[in-house]
Amino acid sequence: MQGRGMEPLDIRRARVTDGFWMRAMELVRTQVIPYQWAALNDRVEGAEKSWWMHNMRAAARAIQRRKAGQWQPRTGEAAFVSQPAGAPDPDRFYGWVFQDSDGYKWLEAVSYSLMTHPDPALQATAQEAVDAIRAAQEDDGYLDTYYTLNGIDRRFTNLKDHHELYCFGHLTEAAVAWRQATGRDDLLETAVRFADCIAAHIGPGEGQKRGYPGHEIAEMALVRLWQETGEERFLRQAAYYVNERGREPNYFAEEIRRSREAGVEQSDWGAAGRYAYYQAHKPVRDQDEVLGHAVRAMYLYSGAADVARLTGDEALRAACDRVWHSTVSEKMYITGGVGATHVGEAFSLPFDLPNDAAYSETCAAIGLVFFARRMLQLKPDSRYADVMELALYNTVLAGMALDGQSFFYVNPLEVNPAACHADERLQHVKPVRQKWFGCACCPPNIARTVASLSAYAWSQTPDVLYTHLYVAGEVDAALNGQPLRLKFDAGLPWQGEVTVTVTGGEAEGVLAFRKPGWAREAEITIPAGFQLEEKDGYWHVSGPWKPGDTVRIALPLPVRAVAAHPAVREDAGLAAFMRGPVVYCAEEKDNGPALHLLRVKPAEAAAAAETEETEIGGLPVTALVLPAARESAGENASLYRDWQPPVTVPVRLKLIPYFAWANRGEGEMRVWLRTE
Amino acid sequence: MQGRGMEPLDIRRARVTDGFWMRAMELVRTQVIPYQWAALNDRVEGAEKSWWMHNMRAAARAIQRRKAGQWQPRTGEAAFVSQPAGAPDPDRFYGWVFQDSDGYKWLEAVSYSLMTHPDPALQATAQEAVDAIRAAQEDDGYLDTYYTLNGIDRRFTNLKDHHELYCFGHLTEAAVAWRQATGRDDLLETAVRFADCIAAHIGPGEGQKRGYPGHEIAEMALVRLWQETGEERFLRQAAYYVNERGREPNYFAEEIRRSREAGVEQSDWGAAGRYAYYQAHKPVRDQDEVLGHAVRAMYLYSGAADVARLTGDEALRAACDRVWHSTVSEKMYITGGVGATHVGEAFSLPFDLPNDAAYSETCAAIGLVFFARRMLQLKPDSRYADVMELALYNTVLAGMALDGQSFFYVNPLEVNPAACHADERLQHVKPVRQKWFGCACCPPNIARTVASLSAYAWSQTPDVLYTHLYVAGEVDAALNGQPLRLKFDAGLPWQGEVTVTVTGGEAEGVLAFRKPGWAREAEITIPAGFQLEEKDGYWHVSGPWKPGDTVRIALPLPVRAVAAHPAVREDAGLAAFMRGPVVYCAEEKDNGPALHLLRVKPAEAAAAAETEETEIGGLPVTALVLPAARESAGENASLYRDWQPPVTVPVRLKLIPYFAWANRGEGEMRVWLRTE
Repeated sequence: MQGRGMEPLDIRRARVTDGFWMRAMELVRTQVIPYQWAALNDRVEGAEKSWWMHNMRAAARAIQRRKAGQWQPRTGEAAFVSQPAGAPDPDRFYGWVFQDSDGYKWLEAVSYSLMTHPDPALQATAQEAVDAIRAAQEDDGYLDTYYTLNGIDRRFTNLKDHHELYCFGHLTEAAVAWRQATGRDDLLETAVRFADCIAAHIGPGEGQKRGYPGHEIAEMALVRLWQETGEERFLRQAAYYVNERGREPNYFAEEIRRSREAGVEQSDWGAAGRYAYYQAHKPVRDQDEVLGHAVRAMYLYSGAADVARLTGDEALRAACDRVWHSTVSEKMYITGGVGATHVGEAFSLPFDLPNDAAYSETCAAIGLVFFARRMLQLKPDSRYADVMELALYNTVLAGMALDGQSFFYVNPLEVNPAACHADERLQHVKPVRQKWFGCACCPPNIARTVASLSAYAWSQTPDVLYTHLYVAGEVDAALNGQPLRLKFDAGLPWQGEVTVTVTGGEAEGVLAFRKPGWAREAEITIPAGFQLEEKDGYWHVSGPWKPGDTVRIALPLPVRAVAAHPAVREDAGLAAFMRGPVVYCAEEKDNGPALHLLRVKPAEAAAAAETEETEIGGLPVTALVLPAARESAGENASLYRDWQPPVTVPVRLKLIPYFAWANRGEGEMRVWLRTE
Repeated sequence: MQGRGMEPLDIRRARVTDGFWMRAMELVRTQVIPYQWAALNDRVEGAEKSWWMHNMRAAARAIQRRKAGQWQPRTGEAAFVSQPAGAPDPDRFYGWVFQDSDGYKWLEAVSYSLMTHPDPALQATAQEAVDAIRAAQEDDGYLDTYYTLNGIDRRFTNLKDHHELYCFGHLTEAAVAWRQATGRDDLLETAVRFADCIAAHIGPGEGQKRGYPGHEIAEMALVRLWQETGEERFLRQAAYYVNERGREPNYFAEEIRRSREAGVEQSDWGAAGRYAYYQAHKPVRDQDEVLGHAVRAMYLYSGAADVARLTGDEALRAACDRVWHSTVSEKMYITGGVGATHVGEAFSLPFDLPNDAAYSETCAAIGLVFFARRMLQLKPDSRYADVMELALYNTVLAGMALDGQSFFYVNPLEVNPAACHADERLQHVKPVRQKWFGCACCPPNIARTVASLSAYAWSQTPDVLYTHLYVAGEVDAALNGQPLRLKFDAGLPWQGEVTVTVTGGEAEGVLAFRKPGWAREAEITIPAGFQLEEKDGYWHVSGPWKPGDTVRIALPLPVRAVAAHPAVREDAGLAAFMRGPVVYCAEEKDNGPALHLLRVKPAEAAAAAETEETEIGGLPVTALVLPAARESAGENASLYRDWQPPVTVPVRLKLIPYFAWANRGEGEMRVWLRTE
């Protein structure tokens, strides 16, 4: 366990009471978790079917029948199996090849919720899911309903696209959380057995397949499994995946060749890009530019940062640094969204960040949150936390409606509903959130992220407690082995006064508080006689802490006008507005249609902006009202005419937080506004 | 023949000597026509194969063998047949289902060239093509190598997608031109026999298929066939196609149903849009908005305008008017390009005119030229001619390199080569012209259009000669039956002094000269004692014309800054520059990279613009040099930062004609420039 350095706070040691975040967490607990359970059991009217429980039960039966010699596997290699006309076949796999993972993500979210909000009824429901999973596990530990139902002999022959190791990763994340929440070993045992089954087939040893996940996450998950069990072999397997990836001969190319030799056609999607779609175009430690499928990439580099930290691998750490730079300096939306193109749900060229055709998948922003936290663990620099916060407050939250009942997969920064409906080039962009997707990665991913917020807000080394996000709540920290209870009072993102009070325990050590990048004029007040040092964007306050000690932090929240790098063509001549970590947008509901005709003088508008307390979907939010001009819509103008200075009228522009958009019906939306 | 009204000038009555256009016509004659002949015979190294002559010869052999009972047809329904590894099968159809049409378009271009530039060697080569076509015709007149080779019993079962009537249309256009050029009836007889074969199967009669072309052009072609032969049945068939289209029950839906009943899968592409892709979503006379595949649409409405004029059908004429308005007032690029989306090569929503993702197919602009000329024939209003001229000088010419050796299918208004190469969303956009396409509609279509320029420049009623385009040359007109020879001196698009001199004959009547929409300050000087009347954008000059009579027209060519309608989101805050009919663009070659950082004050820049005579690809062109500002590229800027007024440096911006872009290597290009 040496060299672990900074670890996120154990969720069980925090109690979030924050008005803003509690609402999201309560939505997850009271709306999303029950809704998703219904979805996993195909009980949501009008939503695409999940098939999760169906597949688990079918697999369990198949295993029993196979033992009794009564099972004839189907042989299909389709990544998606749709329900035929008529009733579903109870013994058949349906849905996407990665469908198992949806239930695992749900279980993980449930576990975080149980940690802070015990609920015997919910735990009993979750136990049903755990039992179903366990029943679907093969005797040798293998667990993937797709192959159990479609031909167990074909398992591990399409690591590239068939997601067995991805499902394993989500299972493991769930198993660790489930044990931490309930103390129960059952799902962890399942995960360990699957891990050992995989490691028996895939690895660097003789006779093994030198493969690695087509969709990463197992790397991060194995690290957690190591941390939970103390079994070094799991860390070694994680390191093996990271180190083997992208080496020549390319495993995916080999896999396709072998598959075709066996008479099974396998897609060579990504071959032209040398499998950059899968981040397998060259060894991870040689990578510079972030490429390919955005969720895959974020999950990989999260795992790679874990491995770099835990094995002291400096070359790998340097690669993570380079890729981080490529991500946040060239390929990230102002909302913390990543993956600009729907083609392959992928990163586009540097600085190619279209607003209306954006992909910016919710899960990719969640992946960026994971990556950022792990970069923070490598080095506590507030710039990583700035990005983590940006993605959380904007794209991750935007992914879920304010009633917790519908979700965005894609998060555009500009929407014209008429174009979304009629233009097939924008068919991935939805102007309103959807109930549930056949490919439902985002809703349960939002749930597990929001439910584990405290693991992002705070982290610990033996002698330092870091506060990354100012979330109201109570924390049981430990400094140099001495317990210390802290109370955080905060009202972000709407107001910036933070008070941290020691409410119990006495300890020597450092409380480190992030000075957000957006808070240039931030001030801190510390107890008399304490030491204050500013380092890498954190105030390090050291002292002998005792009850009653108070730290006050003032984070002014002026409205800021923001410009993008001049290389971002799509944002040339445009400005966006932020306040604290929150990105704002204009909606048609407040400002009428044709938002592209609105123009602002950015600096003047920011200075003159007024805040307006309002409510959207039941959530109190701070809106902004600022001076702008609206160009004439020229209804009777000809298509082309002699240029004339545009005729404008002054208007009061109302902006709302981006995460709250599309909660008041369908309409235009725009983050980046034209300047004058 | 009553009610014909205005007809284009017979090409044989004009001799174009215009420096600008002669160069393009000579390129067609000396480069394009020989090159395309080589392509049709698959003799161009490195170009995709045409298979045209291959298919003709294979079909001719198949017909003979079938008669001898020695032919087993293939049964394939693929719209494209690719060459397998190894040598091609000499008896097999290859290429697209519409491949026959490429040779017909070539023959049409050859014919126009022969009309004004007799060339026995070329005529002999063309005769080879004519003979090959005739040999491939079935005894009952049917002529389509795809079905002759793949199963003649399946003919006319997929009018929607299999282009038999499209190929017929191009054959007919070629046949009429070939007869006019050579006096030979051979190809016309072939076309007439095919027309009669089609009419025997498709039409309003009992037992006939109530079908119509999936890809229109037969409508226009049948009108020409009627004009050339005087046989009314061809005009009736054209009117039938226009009138039947889009009626319920929808023929294409019926065809799919029948095809599936016969066990042949047929794509239902377009079904969701009720076949608007094919302009078959409702009866033509009920249509308002221009929809669907842009070339199909332009060809349809061209034919519909012909039918409306020739049958005096006012309701159809009104529909043509509405669709024209939809096209040019809501869906046309400033370059005269139409069809904004690559999805279906189609019209997008009103005012959706993206510059970098534009489709704007060369053939669609050619179709717009056809449509415009036919609207002019319905009513001589210079606004139609303005559009015709715009499309010709900009998109049609841009389709061909200045050396006549490579071609654009897609004509973007903004190009970033790096994005075109890496971004699959832009895979249809090529930053440099291509040699020859497998789907090679555009090159021969450019050839036949340019070669027949005089039919667009002038048209005639019995007592009026209309001049639509100012092209230097000589014309043998006839006013009220009296011959009149005219000489046109003009230097457009670079200089605007036009002189028209009567050089022979004496006649009473009107010479009508277009006052271009771009020439607000135009002036005309007429012989003393003549009458001058301005009507619908034409100066009508009447007098007793005699040799030596001279009309002088001064068309000032100031540089104009142009704005798009405020509803065009993609052009908000942007300006383009024109001079006369020519649209200008900035290229990286002259202005460095990152053209999106250039800003102009449109009115001031236009006023201060200087012309610069230069040469591009051997063509003398007038470039523009105007004051602009370049924003800092901010190399070391962060991706997002506090908005600051952009730092700019003054620059001299050089603009070249849009049609001349991409003739000096690969680089950025931009028509619409940011304003300040």
